[in-house]
Amino acid sequence: MEKLRTCIMGCTGVVGQQFVRMLDNHPWFEVVLLSASARSAGKTYAEAARWSLGAEIPAYAAAMPVVEASAAAVIESGAAIAFSALPAAVASGLETELANGGCYVFTNASAHRMDPDVPLVVPEVNPEHFALIRRAARARGAIVADSNCSTAGLVLALKPLLPFGPRRVVVSTYQAVSGAGRAGLPALDILGNAIPFIRGEEEKLARESNRILGRLEGPAVRDAGIEVCASCCRVAAREGHLMSVTADLDSDPAPDEIAGAFRDFRGVPQAMALPTAPQRPLIVRTEEDRPQPLLDAHAGFPRRARGMAVTIGRIRRRGRSVSFFLLVHNTIRGAAGTCILNAEYALRAGLIRQAAGRPSEGKECGDS
Amino acid sequence: MEKLRTCIMGCTGVVGQQFVRMLDNHPWFEVVLLSASARSAGKTYAEAARWSLGAEIPAYAAAMPVVEASAAAVIESGAAIAFSALPAAVASGLETELANGGCYVFTNASAHRMDPDVPLVVPEVNPEHFALIRRAARARGAIVADSNCSTAGLVLALKPLLPFGPRRVVVSTYQAVSGAGRAGLPALDILGNAIPFIRGEEEKLARESNRILGRLEGPAVRDAGIEVCASCCRVAAREGHLMSVTADLDSDPAPDEIAGAFRDFRGVPQAMALPTAPQRPLIVRTEEDRPQPLLDAHAGFPRRARGMAVTIGRIRRRGRSVSFFLLVHNTIRGAAGTCILNAEYALRAGLIRQAAGRPSEGKECGDS
Amino acid sequence: MEKLRTCIMGCTGVVGQQFVRMLDNHPWFEVVLLSASARSAGKTYAEAARWSLGAEIPAYAAAMPVVEASAAAVIESGAAIAFSALPAAVASGLETELANGGCYVFTNASAHRMDPDVPLVVPEVNPEHFALIRRAARARGAIVADSNCSTAGLVLALKPLLPFGPRRVVVSTYQAVSGAGRAGLPALDILGNAIPFIRGEEEKLARESNRILGRLEGPAVRDAGIEVCASCCRVAAREGHLMSVTADLDSDPAPDEIAGAFRDFRGVPQAMALPTAPQRPLIVRTEEDRPQPLLDAHAGFPRRARGMAVTIGRIRRRGRSVSFFLLVHNTIRGAAGTCILNAEYALRAGLIRQAAGRPSEGKECGDS
Amino acid sequence: MEKLRTCIMGCTGVVGQQFVRMLDNHPWFEVVLLSASARSAGKTYAEAARWSLGAEIPAYAAAMPVVEASAAAVIESGAAIAFSALPAAVASGLETELANGGCYVFTNASAHRMDPDVPLVVPEVNPEHFALIRRAARARGAIVADSNCSTAGLVLALKPLLPFGPRRVVVSTYQAVSGAGRAGLPALDILGNAIPFIRGEEEKLARESNRILGRLEGPAVRDAGIEVCASCCRVAAREGHLMSVTADLDSDPAPDEIAGAFRDFRGVPQAMALPTAPQRPLIVRTEEDRPQPLLDAHAGFPRRARGMAVTIGRIRRRGRSVSFFLLVHNTIRGAAGTCILNAEYALRAGLIRQAAGRPSEGKECGDS
Repeated sequence: MEKLRTCIMGCTGVVGQQFVRMLDNHPWFEVVLLSASARSAGKTYAEAARWSLGAEIPAYAAAMPVVEASAAAVIESGAAIAFSALPAAVASGLETELANGGCYVFTNASAHRMDPDVPLVVPEVNPEHFALIRRAARARGAIVADSNCSTAGLVLALKPLLPFGPRRVVVSTYQAVSGAGRAGLPALDILGNAIPFIRGEEEKLARESNRILGRLEGPAVRDAGIEVCASCCRVAAREGHLMSVTADLDSDPAPDEIAGAFRDFRGVPQAMALPTAPQRPLIVRTEEDRPQPLLDAHAGFPRRARGMAVTIGRIRRRGRSVSFFLLVHNTIRGAAGTCILNAEYALRAGLIRQAAGRPSEGKECGDS
Repeated sequence: MEKLRTCIMGCTGVVGQQFVRMLDNHPWFEVVLLSASARSAGKTYAEAARWSLGAEIPAYAAAMPVVEASAAAVIESGAAIAFSALPAAVASGLETELANGGCYVFTNASAHRMDPDVPLVVPEVNPEHFALIRRAARARGAIVADSNCSTAGLVLALKPLLPFGPRRVVVSTYQAVSGAGRAGLPALDILGNAIPFIRGEEEKLARESNRILGRLEGPAVRDAGIEVCASCCRVAAREGHLMSVTADLDSDPAPDEIAGAFRDFRGVPQAMALPTAPQRPLIVRTEEDRPQPLLDAHAGFPRRARGMAVTIGRIRRRGRSVSFFLLVHNTIRGAAGTCILNAEYALRAGLIRQAAGRPSEGKECGDS
Repeated sequence: MEKLRTCIMGCTGVVGQQFVRMLDNHPWFEVVLLSASARSAGKTYAEAARWSLGAEIPAYAAAMPVVEASAAAVIESGAAIAFSALPAAVASGLETELANGGCYVFTNASAHRMDPDVPLVVPEVNPEHFALIRRAARARGAIVADSNCSTAGLVLALKPLLPFGPRRVVVSTYQAVSGAGRAGLPALDILGNAIPFIRGEEEKLARESNRILGRLEGPAVRDAGIEVCASCCRVAAREGHLMSVTADLDSDPAPDEIAGAFRDFRGVPQAMALPTAPQRPLIVRTEEDRPQPLLDAHAGFPRRARGMAVTIGRIRRRGRSVSFFLLVHNTIRGAAGTCILNAEYALRAGLIRQAAGRPSEGKECGDS
Repeated sequence: MEKLRTCIMGCTGVVGQQFVRMLDNHPWFEVVLLSASARSAGKTYAEAARWSLGAEIPAYAAAMPVVEASAAAVIESGAAIAFSALPAAVASGLETELANGGCYVFTNASAHRMDPDVPLVVPEVNPEHFALIRRAARARGAIVADSNCSTAGLVLALKPLLPFGPRRVVVSTYQAVSGAGRAGLPALDILGNAIPFIRGEEEKLARESNRILGRLEGPAVRDAGIEVCASCCRVAAREGHLMSVTADLDSDPAPDEIAGAFRDFRGVPQAMALPTAPQRPLIVRTEEDRPQPLLDAHAGFPRRARGMAVTIGRIRRRGRSVSFFLLVHNTIRGAAGTCILNAEYALRAGLIRQAAGRPSEGKECGDS
């Protein structure tokens, strides 16, 4: 089967690098274009990116030229799919233009997350929201957003708790520096420190969680109605957002029921065995001091799904509430990984329609 | 006025070092004895302590010999007061023996914190609990405990909130490595990491907060009845425990009322102008990203009270709850500093009775 | 081919864990026994080891019982090879006893490194020193030592410089905290700090480098006669010792000759294609700011040889000297990895003789 | 005595903040103007500076308006002295303009350090170089440069070694992140890492050390002729550059002679008892593991001279060379502090001539 041509926009940042890494040897997607800001244009990817993920830059990307991000360049490349790690300000217009041009944009930018015709999806949680694509009157093309990085972890943990009726969630975060981007946080600010503020993060956690967990009612999403009280803090870890969660429940589950619900949770990506789907989206650890960023950020099996599993530990019932810690890899599950998983789902579910003359069709992927 | 003879037990650890530093040139207290474990005995303090507080070891202490901790040594030294940073296991028997021998023990050890005849005091919050001393049938001598380090910060913040009826507090902590003691935490565990577990800490926060905020009813303390849901985590900061607090209130104070209550809070130590009392126990910062361990841990004025003020920031009302971050210097306000403040209060309040022939009396301190 | 039965002694520490990880699915060796101190004995490996290498404990080891380290236990297990990460004090007697019992001990302990009948080997550098085994009058069994962690990096870099006549080397190290062992360095000492002292390290660098680079003359090694002025310092990195090296040369090589010598360097392990041998022992990077611990510590190809390549960068000629930085993974190339490579070399070179009735012979490995 | 009116240019960065802090309550200087880039102009200093030095912004500065840096603004303010922490590109023209206008510019910028009419001075080492001022044909006004931060530490240590004939110095640095400026180094680059490259630093160390230690011959400085082989590396410390130095000597001093030379070293600032001069410019520590950034960066007595003393430790003789570690506070002794000390020296030495009608004269300072 021919692979689907794809493009990465915003390829030099931390999330962009994760796209480059995770799409290396991807069974369904082939990267044909790397784009970034004008500053990087004209350089090879090895020159333009200050590679920060360890190991080497994947061979396919190192010598590729980086072009300036534009709709024309993407369309000319024949890319059916664009993965976007663009800054929100740039993403806003460019992603719309691309979608209107027939491209399927899977974006980590926040620009369109609350648009009524843009599904905001973590595919284990709300794949049915993909239906929103049809609200946009396009024959082909769409924008599909992933969530904010912390939100991805929270909604994966809350989804199996829904039967217990969570009405209020108090969450405090311990967010890694990679969440601030390649050069977003000066060393002098965070070394040996903790900073209890991340612009817009607390609002995003509340707003996006409620949209993702909300129900599709006709052509719109009705918010889940969960009160999310978030307090967000940066700490001196490199990768993996740790979160302390206390959820008030309407029911009174037996102590092990909650751990069981986490452990047994599977979503559509698991049922479909998508390439980037972890066998278990949630891993419950019973050690007294887990999860930890250093030890658990890259949880996830098989190899292609490393960093795609959320780890939960220290589950404690108190009265009508349950407390636990969770850990989500912020630039994999919280960014590039979920975008790729969304694309895999869309392709396998037949939601991506190719232009005439373009190579691959979603259904053909069934053989891979 | 002659100064009161005092002893420091457990002088080599992080809290012990803070005792040594804070008692340098103290107007009321003179350190006449430094004691530690048998391993340190016989060495000078400069040899025994791996001084970790920056600057130099105070001149008075550097050449003092360290003796093995024992009741006999303390009593022989003529110390009326013993400051204790002993490990709980050692503290248990030794502190009782000393109190029975007529010594006033101000301890940071957890061994006796819940004893019915031991006041557990943060003197801005519950100085009236000192009355518990009389439950013990001693002519002289007493054990007075300070709280756990995180608890000191929490109760100072909750005290001015009491009029608003806090019934439940959800708190997540970001605790500095110095809280684990001189060598309590391997570098390999925490460098670039966060560890969501500190043994016994969550229980202490709940139990001790309720005792300190509780009412003295006859000869006993009645718990405050506040539900404290604590989740404790170590982060890679050196000094200062940051805490994310969400308190559910019975009333509905106007937005600025809470900040005002924090700002206006003063306790008995401030009224008495005790040497180690900060002019303002709570400092409210209005910047969007404070408090931070690096910038705020040493808050407190005047100089002798550095690290004794708790800093509060990011106050947010949401429905019937209020969220904020607070920062408490764990080894100063959360340990040595509060013990010293307790001793200053006891001396000034006339609660310390000297044996015949011993130099100073509490009331004489009034002149200093 | 049947695999050779092997044992890991001191399996719970940082180096012990690297042995456990690197021997997972090893093509020639099978771990049949895990031993450690009495404190760990009786537990499963998953219980005994606080696994710190990320990912999961290899499945083969997790449920294995840990036994107390003793010669009897090893011999009873039928292990022909013992990998030792024992503390020097324990290693001294136990390793001798095992060798005398016919076991081949590949050790990271420093106890026997300077013994005249113990080869101190980094196999790309001085495999001919294995001949020293014959000095010990044993039919079977031997002790083979690897070098100190920093030394491994230094000698690999100096070997290809030998034709240029290095007579003096000034080296300053930037050593990662994992070099101090599992709990060897308190967080409070190093977080945001650098400590310019590592006990014994500077002497080891001088002594061991000269032995490893020395010539075998009859039954003894004659020191290389290079003056090594080492200054060793701990920094707040996790893995990978960075070293700043200035070598005074007898000759005056053209600028690129030195880089070429590094790049072209291959040793016997490469010629033999040993399983743990990196294709290139030395990797020269031309970026202006490499090598860096975070980016280069795990250099080495193929996958089994990750962390086995030393990375060199910033090569500068000045007068008759050359300066450069090098990076060596301290617990892989500087410890467990070189021990395993030594064992692979010994096996393939036919230096390991099996007791009658024991399964494998070195030469049989030729087929794997 | 009236204080001399002074201005701080580039007041918001790390070095600018040190100027603001160190000039608080200075006995001779009064800050009348704070200037920075256009971005900060119009704000109060408290708003413009992200204060990063702990404690509070000095009261005198907090509410001062920041103006855009220009020669006109400085001259209009009546400032006789300008302390400059400007970026080199801006400093170049502006400092010249100011000096031509009669202002005495004490600068930490590198722009003019090698100009023949600009003395490059660490006043304990080469105060006689101030004579170069006269090369510029100005009635009043001058540019006086301090050295690069690492260089300040190196020359202070080399000065007392000059009698032993150092001909070559091999130095490797461990430089703190504050050396990269307020936001000069992304957290993601250095957290848990070390970066063996600092642009231009190695060249500056060689070039500036030789100029500062050089002899004034007529109207020019003759280089000291010491070969300085520097290798510079950033580490994850906050304040204080640690340096590993190996100096080859022409003579063969007895072991304690070198330590004695360091200890006994005093310069003109000590003889003059300048306000910011440390009583001892070099502090020799005999512990086995000092100096350390965390413990020794702020060495210096009295209080106003904290961070102005360089700490030396681990002195080792080897053959004809001596090795040691030194620590210099990079933004105090290595920047703002030496500029202030230069200004104090110039004032006391009568080198600063006031314009008519301007308040203070150097000699009047004799009374303070």
